[in-house]
Amino acid sequence: MLEKIDLEYRTKRNTYDKRIDGLKYELSILEQKLKKAGLPVIIIFEGWGASGKGRMISKLINNLDPRGFKVYSNKLPEDYERRRPFLWRYWTEIPEYGKISVLDRSWYQDVFTERIESGLSDEETMKRAESIKAMERQLTDDGYLIIKFFLHISQKEQKKRFDKLDSDKDTEWRVTEKDRKRNREYDRYYKAFDEMLERTDTRRIPWHVISGEDKLGMRLEVFKTVIDSVNKAIADAEKKKSVSGVKVMIDILSEYKLIKMPVLSDIMLNNSLQKAEYKSRLKGLQDELSDLHNRLYRKKVPVIICYEGWDAAGKGGNIRRVTAAMDPRGYEVIPIASPSTEELSHHYLWRFWKHLPKTGHIAIFDRTWYGRVMVERIEGLCSEEEWKRAYREINEFERDLTDWGAVVIKFWLQIDKDEQLRRFQDRENTPEKRWKITDEDWRNREKWDKYEEAVNDMLKYTSTETAPWHIIESQDKRYGRISALEIIIDEIKKHV
Amino acid sequence: MLEKIDLEYRTKRNTYDKRIDGLKYELSILEQKLKKAGLPVIIIFEGWGASGKGRMISKLINNLDPRGFKVYSNKLPEDYERRRPFLWRYWTEIPEYGKISVLDRSWYQDVFTERIESGLSDEETMKRAESIKAMERQLTDDGYLIIKFFLHISQKEQKKRFDKLDSDKDTEWRVTEKDRKRNREYDRYYKAFDEMLERTDTRRIPWHVISGEDKLGMRLEVFKTVIDSVNKAIADAEKKKSVSGVKVMIDILSEYKLIKMPVLSDIMLNNSLQKAEYKSRLKGLQDELSDLHNRLYRKKVPVIICYEGWDAAGKGGNIRRVTAAMDPRGYEVIPIASPSTEELSHHYLWRFWKHLPKTGHIAIFDRTWYGRVMVERIEGLCSEEEWKRAYREINEFERDLTDWGAVVIKFWLQIDKDEQLRRFQDRENTPEKRWKITDEDWRNREKWDKYEEAVNDMLKYTSTETAPWHIIESQDKRYGRISALEIIIDEIKKHV
Repeated sequence: MLEKIDLEYRTKRNTYDKRIDGLKYELSILEQKLKKAGLPVIIIFEGWGASGKGRMISKLINNLDPRGFKVYSNKLPEDYERRRPFLWRYWTEIPEYGKISVLDRSWYQDVFTERIESGLSDEETMKRAESIKAMERQLTDDGYLIIKFFLHISQKEQKKRFDKLDSDKDTEWRVTEKDRKRNREYDRYYKAFDEMLERTDTRRIPWHVISGEDKLGMRLEVFKTVIDSVNKAIADAEKKKSVSGVKVMIDILSEYKLIKMPVLSDIMLNNSLQKAEYKSRLKGLQDELSDLHNRLYRKKVPVIICYEGWDAAGKGGNIRRVTAAMDPRGYEVIPIASPSTEELSHHYLWRFWKHLPKTGHIAIFDRTWYGRVMVERIEGLCSEEEWKRAYREINEFERDLTDWGAVVIKFWLQIDKDEQLRRFQDRENTPEKRWKITDEDWRNREKWDKYEEAVNDMLKYTSTETAPWHIIESQDKRYGRISALEIIIDEIKKHV
Repeated sequence: MLEKIDLEYRTKRNTYDKRIDGLKYELSILEQKLKKAGLPVIIIFEGWGASGKGRMISKLINNLDPRGFKVYSNKLPEDYERRRPFLWRYWTEIPEYGKISVLDRSWYQDVFTERIESGLSDEETMKRAESIKAMERQLTDDGYLIIKFFLHISQKEQKKRFDKLDSDKDTEWRVTEKDRKRNREYDRYYKAFDEMLERTDTRRIPWHVISGEDKLGMRLEVFKTVIDSVNKAIADAEKKKSVSGVKVMIDILSEYKLIKMPVLSDIMLNNSLQKAEYKSRLKGLQDELSDLHNRLYRKKVPVIICYEGWDAAGKGGNIRRVTAAMDPRGYEVIPIASPSTEELSHHYLWRFWKHLPKTGHIAIFDRTWYGRVMVERIEGLCSEEEWKRAYREINEFERDLTDWGAVVIKFWLQIDKDEQLRRFQDRENTPEKRWKITDEDWRNREKWDKYEEAVNDMLKYTSTETAPWHIIESQDKRYGRISALEIIIDEIKKHV
């Protein structure tokens, strides 16, 4: 795509003067429009070093109200960022609905620059490209508008700009030996950039390649593209044709290696443990887990344990038996309640991305992203389209986690309806447990059958080979705790 | 204080067995109590390496519901943390009202450990100790309960524990050469710790020094102290005797070197600039600021620019003339709106601490922490006690910023009441400006006199030598913009 750009062309000053005021005016009213439409916008600037990304962003945002946008400068990741999946920092940067994020460099550098400079393997490159594709689709499906710019300059021009920066004491720090090397190896980067642009130029999210040498023209072009893209997206949103969720569900069956799960009604709940046996096995397993925790900390393996289950199935007590074995400096329990206003103003996966652990750490989610296909589905908190789409999105999310090297362990804590009633009643009759039982629990109980259907669907569509579901018989709490500990130990052992 | 601890003493197993269940029960109902009371609790664990902090925290939190607490492990600061004031990370860790933060190491290490190991100067140590004192007072005044534990072990015991960790492949990474050195220099650390404990053991926030060699006794003691402290704090909160705000205001006049400010009614607003002169001066100043921005980035000087002023005084346009000169990768505009629910659930300074820039970066606050003594005062959003106390808290906050090396520039944009009316009317009559004017603006306008009184108080009590106020004549917008740019340039020049 780069070869199509005429780097010799210069826009005339009077063409610029004629058009710029109109564009500035359009920009100045843009944020009000997208706020009203609830449209979130991500504007990406990629391009050569010294192609003028910073200056261009400066010109752009100077027409915007700071309450409506945020600029993120993404250099190569720092240490604490490298201890997370590579998309982690970008997920934390997505705007809330109705606002703009301007990204100076983006996830593309994590593939294409790293490939040249950090020797990313072909396999890893492919995986990352897949992850990016999935992320962009997930965001777009959720209504995000992504606008991608690439600023292009020639090798000669780049050298000239580096020389100029170098000649001033206050700017020379901007030009590193790495930059010089990149300039010398311009051709190699050219090929890589060109390949990146070709491969990720889609109809839904096209690249806008712009000459960074034609400063006036660049400004006009960027302003106009932003304005047109936003106006089009607002118009499109009104007549939105949604993705078929049913098709997505069928696709999953072929896309992923799924593990066949039993339906809940087939689960026997007749296992139990005597107190003495429980105590001795518990002690042994906790000691073992404690050792493993040290080992995975040392080997920097991240672990994500997901707890789902019926109300009163014993999640809290089960989690406590797991954490008792662990150093509190190496794990965190993340209780997932209903989303806050801020969380509701972002893609639903945003809040889970934010809570990912560092490598070597354990995150235990007390309820998870599966809320999307359970409570949100049943209570109508998202559309049918959305929860059906979510199975794939969740599989993709978990694939990002396992690709990153995480051990992902998912538990469904199973009890039957009678046992739940007994536990609810027990809670109501015990003063210090009473806060644990609410009207909502009783209302959910009335929808037992609907939940059972949703859980069966969830088990069917999201038990992948790398992140399978484990059904824990929790009718007998002791048995459930021992089972969970055994599975956690087994799974971690496979990785360390 | 350390010499008072009998490290030989061992609690008997049957004493432990007799008391532990009762304490665990008390702990299990503690979170419900403090949630109801809205009491935020910070539990600090300091102590020797290998004194058992991790294990102790594990035992403590295993009796708590993960929805009510969060554990923070504070090692020596990482790079991105060192680019902020040393208290920055601790401010981000304070719990919301009704919840608990457990801190494994705390701000004390930033003084006492760094003093020994990073050669913190006496002067810097004193400053940090002052900052800590101020932070603890601010939190306590706001209703936070701080519980401080120090776990004590002998040199011999510490060595034994290191040896044991060292003998296992999975735990040997835990013992570093630094730890060994600390063990060898036990006496030196002993003196430093002892001094720290003595100096920061206050009636309001006492230290609880506990033997880490008596494992059973330690548990009983920590559990009991947490329970008693929380119960006492809840009881005290009901009969709370508040600090006298008036006294605080008088104290400030002697504590800080204050710069005498004019009252608003004395400000002449007769300066103005012709367009041609404005344009040429603007260009020159922006170029100069652009150079300075590079220089302070290189020298890693952080800059914090605060904009306050009447509604429609021209803050937005003024800010835009400043940012036009700057690289968007080196600054951020932080618009301060009314606080979110999450922000309301923390000390009011929390949200401003979170937004501090890195060294070398510029943060421009469009409205600031001064909302506490203006809108919150006038609208009754905080008590009289609270806004009167805020003058000192704000001076302390800004002292932390300047001690850290930041350039703090505070603007009050002044216009008169007639000019505001003209601008309001202009906004109402111009379609694309109409969103800028709300009923609230008109309501605020009716309270002009009250605001004027509040602004005069603010100028009187918070114009310190290191962070003085600048009153910008904004009646003529051009004149106001040029003034602001000139001051920013002058102030930055003093530092780079």
